[in-house]
Amino acid sequence: MAPTSPTKVIYDTDPGVDDAMALYFALAHPAIEVVGITTTFGNVTVEQATTNALYLTALAGREIPVTMGVATPWHKAPEKPPAHIHGADGLGNLGARRKFGNLADPRASAQFIVDMARAHPGEITLVAVGPLGNLSLALMIEPQLPTLLREVIVMGGTVSEPGNVSPVAEANIWNDPHAADRVFTAGWKLTMVGLDVTHRVVVLLSLFKRVADKHRHPATDTLHRAVEFYAKFYSGLYQHIADTPGCYAHDLLAFIYLVDPGLFEIDTKVVRVATDGLAQGQTIMNQRDFIDYPHTGWGKDKPRTQVCMQVDATACVQLFEDTMMADWLPA
Amino acid sequence: MAPTSPTKVIYDTDPGVDDAMALYFALAHPAIEVVGITTTFGNVTVEQATTNALYLTALAGREIPVTMGVATPWHKAPEKPPAHIHGADGLGNLGARRKFGNLADPRASAQFIVDMARAHPGEITLVAVGPLGNLSLALMIEPQLPTLLREVIVMGGTVSEPGNVSPVAEANIWNDPHAADRVFTAGWKLTMVGLDVTHRVVVLLSLFKRVADKHRHPATDTLHRAVEFYAKFYSGLYQHIADTPGCYAHDLLAFIYLVDPGLFEIDTKVVRVATDGLAQGQTIMNQRDFIDYPHTGWGKDKPRTQVCMQVDATACVQLFEDTMMADWLPA
Repeated sequence: MAPTSPTKVIYDTDPGVDDAMALYFALAHPAIEVVGITTTFGNVTVEQATTNALYLTALAGREIPVTMGVATPWHKAPEKPPAHIHGADGLGNLGARRKFGNLADPRASAQFIVDMARAHPGEITLVAVGPLGNLSLALMIEPQLPTLLREVIVMGGTVSEPGNVSPVAEANIWNDPHAADRVFTAGWKLTMVGLDVTHRVVVLLSLFKRVADKHRHPATDTLHRAVEFYAKFYSGLYQHIADTPGCYAHDLLAFIYLVDPGLFEIDTKVVRVATDGLAQGQTIMNQRDFIDYPHTGWGKDKPRTQVCMQVDATACVQLFEDTMMADWLPA
Repeated sequence: MAPTSPTKVIYDTDPGVDDAMALYFALAHPAIEVVGITTTFGNVTVEQATTNALYLTALAGREIPVTMGVATPWHKAPEKPPAHIHGADGLGNLGARRKFGNLADPRASAQFIVDMARAHPGEITLVAVGPLGNLSLALMIEPQLPTLLREVIVMGGTVSEPGNVSPVAEANIWNDPHAADRVFTAGWKLTMVGLDVTHRVVVLLSLFKRVADKHRHPATDTLHRAVEFYAKFYSGLYQHIADTPGCYAHDLLAFIYLVDPGLFEIDTKVVRVATDGLAQGQTIMNQRDFIDYPHTGWGKDKPRTQVCMQVDATACVQLFEDTMMADWLPA
């Protein structure tokens, strides 16, 4: 690893099992400095997401500011949290938890994002892996936010791969499509890590067991147990996962992209979000942008998004395992 | 050709240059009997479409009932006809036309479709290559229409291929998305011939010249001139067509499918149409129908559509040329 200073990251998240593995990867990787965690509804309520963010950081012995974010979408009625995927508590129904004294920062997540961006202009990378309400709110509070942040990496959406909440929609975008369309047209340096790549990368349950066995630490034990629950959902859907238990590691890939973007093939095009109807939550990429379409909304002046279309899955899994097996937890 | 009786076809059309080539292929092919032509707005106004249908049949020396159909979409505001693609007259700006005395049947196209289906139950194939208002109207007049028709073949829509009026929408479906969704959920035997296959088949202008040189007939001369205009539009969009003039033959492929479905690879899945917003006119195929999506509208009880996903382009062009070079025109 080059001896440069690590990238300052605000992690916008709704933990969520894959959110938890992404968080621990971020804490374990020397090129990433998580300077704050902002929470949102999505996999769980925003209250549960905040509880989980505080719990996961305390378990890992880290003091990181956690702020509570938006509780509902901008316009659409809220969808029901998918307890069958992440557990009612978002972490695979852990049961009894240890008690920690850490509390959330009282600021709203949008305010925290704006404060941090103003305090460290050009230095903060925002990694957002849930519905995008906090980012939209922050854009309303500070319209200059796109120039104040270093870049934004979103786990969400899909272009060619079928969706996971409809034939065309991915859950994070579908949960708040109006907020998402605002984020995709805001004009910051934006990368979309969607199902086109996350459905290519299966992380086996056995990897999480090796990590837990290595560290014998409550943090990695908790992650292993959560993934056991999460993997059952995928085993019910896909025979190849039923045969060899594992899961998609959606949110993790946003951080993998941050530390090694060379593992991804990128297409840089205008992306917009369908907000209503049968296509609600679809991220539509204008693949043939040399055509002047009669349908408006596809003007050549729209900001572009770097969309991850292909990924080196083997290298991603190896990077994850190598990082998690290193000594990153307190004794 | 097997000596069975030809398939009775009602051709629902908005001629349009590719509509004209499809019509002449249908008239030339011994396995097809065009028993009526119903017109719609789309490439041109419905009045011009009716004029063109009467003109093209008279030019080819054929007496076929022509009825005028719907002039506007069901709900959305009408789009402007694409005069830069098909010409202001729909046939590449022909200039002076010959005079013929043939007149349209006074019935509405929807009534004509219902009358014919009732008179020949189970015998009529409906080949629809424009916006789908007439079919929707006919379904309102006669809810049993799906059991009275033999099958419906629609040129329209797209699944994986980018759209031609937006990144996700094909023009026929986009012109009347509410009517289209009704057609895709009506429960008849339905085949969709969309951009997934029509964008794979380029017919060269030189083929139309060979056909015109062979017949030295006003019908094939007119078609050749119309395609000259139409090919210019494609030359402006695609370098490979600029290098070797030609065009997509969209509507033609619906008839090619009718006479030789073995040239196509089919995926049979639920298809629905996004009616509004950025995805307006998108034909969404539920590719992973083993998933119970939280987004409603994808229930497993919905009727399925045979969607053409792949095509043997070389065989299509050969079948077209062989058919058009045969003796099908009156002396």
